[in-house]
Amino acid sequence: MKIYEDELVYIEIEKSEIPWLKIFTQKKYKEFSDCDTLTKTRILELLDKIERLMIEFYKPDKINIASFGNYLPQVHFHIMARFKNDSYFPEPMWGQKQRVARLNLPEFSEFQAKLLNSLLKS
Amino acid sequence: MKIYEDELVYIEIEKSEIPWLKIFTQKKYKEFSDCDTLTKTRILELLDKIERLMIEFYKPDKINIASFGNYLPQVHFHIMARFKNDSYFPEPMWGQKQRVARLNLPEFSEFQAKLLNSLLKS
Repeated sequence: MKIYEDELVYIEIEKSEIPWLKIFTQKKYKEFSDCDTLTKTRILELLDKIERLMIEFYKPDKINIASFGNYLPQVHFHIMARFKNDSYFPEPMWGQKQRVARLNLPEFSEFQAKLLNSLLKS
Repeated sequence: MKIYEDELVYIEIEKSEIPWLKIFTQKKYKEFSDCDTLTKTRILELLDKIERLMIEFYKPDKINIASFGNYLPQVHFHIMARFKNDSYFPEPMWGQKQRVARLNLPEFSEFQAKLLNSLLKS
């Protein structure tokens, strides 16, 4: 589900037990180095901003960032808040499942509202 | 093995069947957003430069970038050249093994020489 867009990028939610967003470029690029400078900078800015908000709001044990695109060869970045008791920690979310997690996290909708507020102000 | 360093970051090789480098910050930061602006920009620059060189030299099917730090909570970025016939493609290198690969790639030492040359010139 798309929750934000501007001229350069858009942000989608990835359905998961953890807070997980994906940043896509509006223009289709295969690789990060193919992006124009403004788009690269915008991705960096958004990763930075989302990360700070995730840390403030969820107090996760770690933030994870990844850009693969092996199935969908189009630049997109994943940003995830990870918790010691989530189903995969300390493995990446693409790794081996470690346990059946029962996370009790604050409401994502509240995080989303804070994020949008922050993005629209800047 | 460390192959490059400057005041802000250093680069290590990850032993693998694929070309895989890791960029670490010299100062220990837990999260990307904790880094000072110069360090963030330097990471971005190096990802961009390494990616371009990997594409030019190896002609991979996709570049993968990731920053987890769940085991080692210290900012470091992985950058990998991926090939359709590598052992994990299209899964991330942390995913399920897909096959026993027999890659026939150009010499890493030649890539390393080109990279160092490019880094020292800039």
